[in-house]
Amino acid sequence: MATINSNYQKLPGSYLFSEVARRISVYAQAHPERKIIKLSIGDVTRPLVPAVTDALHAAVDEMGRAETFRGYGPEQGYAFLREAIVAYDFQRRGVNIQPDEVFISDGAKSDCGNIGDIFGADNKVAVCDPVYPVYVDTNAMAGRAGDYDAQAEKWTNLYYMPTVAENGFAPALPTEPVDLIYICSPNNPTGTVLTKDQLKVWVDYANANDAVILFDAAYEAFIEEDNVPHSIFEVEGAETCAIEFRSFSKTAGFTGTRCGYTVVPKALVRDGVSLNGMWNRRQSTKFNGTSYIIQRGAAAVYTEEGQRQIMENIAFYKQNAKVIYDGLQKAGLEVYGGKNSPYVWAKTPDGMPSWDFFDKLLEEANVATTPGAGFGPSGEGYIRFTAFGEAEATVEAVERIVALLNK
Amino acid sequence: MATINSNYQKLPGSYLFSEVARRISVYAQAHPERKIIKLSIGDVTRPLVPAVTDALHAAVDEMGRAETFRGYGPEQGYAFLREAIVAYDFQRRGVNIQPDEVFISDGAKSDCGNIGDIFGADNKVAVCDPVYPVYVDTNAMAGRAGDYDAQAEKWTNLYYMPTVAENGFAPALPTEPVDLIYICSPNNPTGTVLTKDQLKVWVDYANANDAVILFDAAYEAFIEEDNVPHSIFEVEGAETCAIEFRSFSKTAGFTGTRCGYTVVPKALVRDGVSLNGMWNRRQSTKFNGTSYIIQRGAAAVYTEEGQRQIMENIAFYKQNAKVIYDGLQKAGLEVYGGKNSPYVWAKTPDGMPSWDFFDKLLEEANVATTPGAGFGPSGEGYIRFTAFGEAEATVEAVERIVALLNK
Repeated sequence: MATINSNYQKLPGSYLFSEVARRISVYAQAHPERKIIKLSIGDVTRPLVPAVTDALHAAVDEMGRAETFRGYGPEQGYAFLREAIVAYDFQRRGVNIQPDEVFISDGAKSDCGNIGDIFGADNKVAVCDPVYPVYVDTNAMAGRAGDYDAQAEKWTNLYYMPTVAENGFAPALPTEPVDLIYICSPNNPTGTVLTKDQLKVWVDYANANDAVILFDAAYEAFIEEDNVPHSIFEVEGAETCAIEFRSFSKTAGFTGTRCGYTVVPKALVRDGVSLNGMWNRRQSTKFNGTSYIIQRGAAAVYTEEGQRQIMENIAFYKQNAKVIYDGLQKAGLEVYGGKNSPYVWAKTPDGMPSWDFFDKLLEEANVATTPGAGFGPSGEGYIRFTAFGEAEATVEAVERIVALLNK
Repeated sequence: MATINSNYQKLPGSYLFSEVARRISVYAQAHPERKIIKLSIGDVTRPLVPAVTDALHAAVDEMGRAETFRGYGPEQGYAFLREAIVAYDFQRRGVNIQPDEVFISDGAKSDCGNIGDIFGADNKVAVCDPVYPVYVDTNAMAGRAGDYDAQAEKWTNLYYMPTVAENGFAPALPTEPVDLIYICSPNNPTGTVLTKDQLKVWVDYANANDAVILFDAAYEAFIEEDNVPHSIFEVEGAETCAIEFRSFSKTAGFTGTRCGYTVVPKALVRDGVSLNGMWNRRQSTKFNGTSYIIQRGAAAVYTEEGQRQIMENIAFYKQNAKVIYDGLQKAGLEVYGGKNSPYVWAKTPDGMPSWDFFDKLLEEANVATTPGAGFGPSGEGYIRFTAFGEAEATVEAVERIVALLNK
């Protein structure tokens, strides 16, 4: 008799963004005349840049001719892309990462989820609170999270690190031993960042305790401040304690095109075993490489033209973030993030529950957001805005919110 | 202290195709003047067909324009592709599969590997012997295989089903209870098939024992005989006991383009839980959909033009298979497969060990093959040829082998 992975039965029903979408849909159906502006999901809206589409077209042509056709590629990704990544994302910043430490994938979500395969089921996992739900759910599926306590809105065996205004969005070191530590900077959902000095504290902790930091740098392209590292490997000692996830989703608008990569340094060893070798084995056994066509598109991001074009899009989104940040401040809210990030994180007025504030903004300003409580208990009392909309619509949404809250 | 998944340490070192590639490379370096013809790895060589490249180009253009740009798509795949699959691959054959039972992925290897996520670690796994190594290795990684016995070349906790000439390549039902049963038809590596009646025996067994059949149909496009099902769901009762993996890799030359799909019927329930819902949760949590561009390319396979074009390629490879089959027979070998499959499976002459025969063909005929022993102990004494080469090179390779063996 086949048995199921019973951990799946412990997962609470609805995924945050499904519930957000459901409420928007219910409201929209009841009020078809209202124009709802979505500042909710973290999905880009600007098209792929010409450097990328040119490269994609060229790769499609290659695949259509016998002389240039490519079948199975290396499971780890093509050298042309791994080398471009190393040169541009690491060596240019003085970070000594080698191409065989870079694994190309179909996106950071897959890698963030699959990385658990190489770790024991007994590891104690620490997550920020609020948190990107994928870190939590994938560990729950693997049996590392214990049981879900619906009352506390927490898993019994996860270690939650409050990341809130009161600690400047820099979580305190754990007070009990933890083994796997998820850190996301620039952070989703808070839009805040950890400086190099703040990250150094975590690197030192992980090295001292043989923990592993799972560092999500999906939003690094939005960083503008010098003391904020784009990669955890800019921090001394990280190569013996960290794995880094990168994505072309927000950097180059690849959310629907799908490409990311993961860095596993060869110096990262646990139980006497190289995690680079383990991830290599995992990927060569359970993955067959990212589409050649898409890898060519990703490589074009690293050309001079590609960089100029994607940075224009980033600047566009950052201008939206500034509009949201300034507007919400004007509306009297306490506002965070938005500077090195496409996310703006705001305290709800008068301690209003975040789902209530979500409903208020949806119904009275026709602006869709994401309630902080959906990201974890310490997200209660906050709300997330994303800068990925159109410029005019973003301005209009903010004007509506300012008008509503200053009423 | 972070711990690793210690099951990885049990995996024997070298992956079959790496060892094949290594021996070819060593020989080629020592004899740079020899022209080695590869009939070894199951990788296509014909370019993508025009219907597919046209669709890919159009999708790239869509992604380059703001009005038609697509960000995150459904994790399960776009409706246009799921519906085309259902209409063409299932309903046309009278099989009642619905679009929400079809999950688009980046390829069958990922799905064959990841499907284990939704099952308990305590399931007893049955595999054919010889076998596609991914089924074995992924279960070993998940702790279902026990320990590797290097002497027996078997895992202590897997149930091996010899699939050999003596039983007509139709494995016998297990003599002890098994829970998850991998069946691949047309088979890799043997190139043989199970008829509808033969598959019905397995479906009845699985239903009677609440087992689950994991059916790999990656080579279905090569089927030409009427009594060989293209899908296990053509067999009555399969919807309550089977999951099916499909791929565009061999069907449409997508080995480097990456797209496949998995069918999990809603009627498939174990421990009182719908496996369709579990796989949906797994994919929405650990996967973010296949590239929109690639899905458009895959959908073009189902147009009238696309079908005509891909069937020309299939016919091309099938002609190669016939050349290999007939030639090996002429050379005096016992030959199997090759009819509904791109693989030809032959007994080595005089019971020669398969790695020895591999070396002999490489060194004396300069033809690369894959030794049967690499696929499992019952593959010993066999050798695999693939039909994915160029027509002229295939003819030449076969002539060399005939000359060598008739010497």
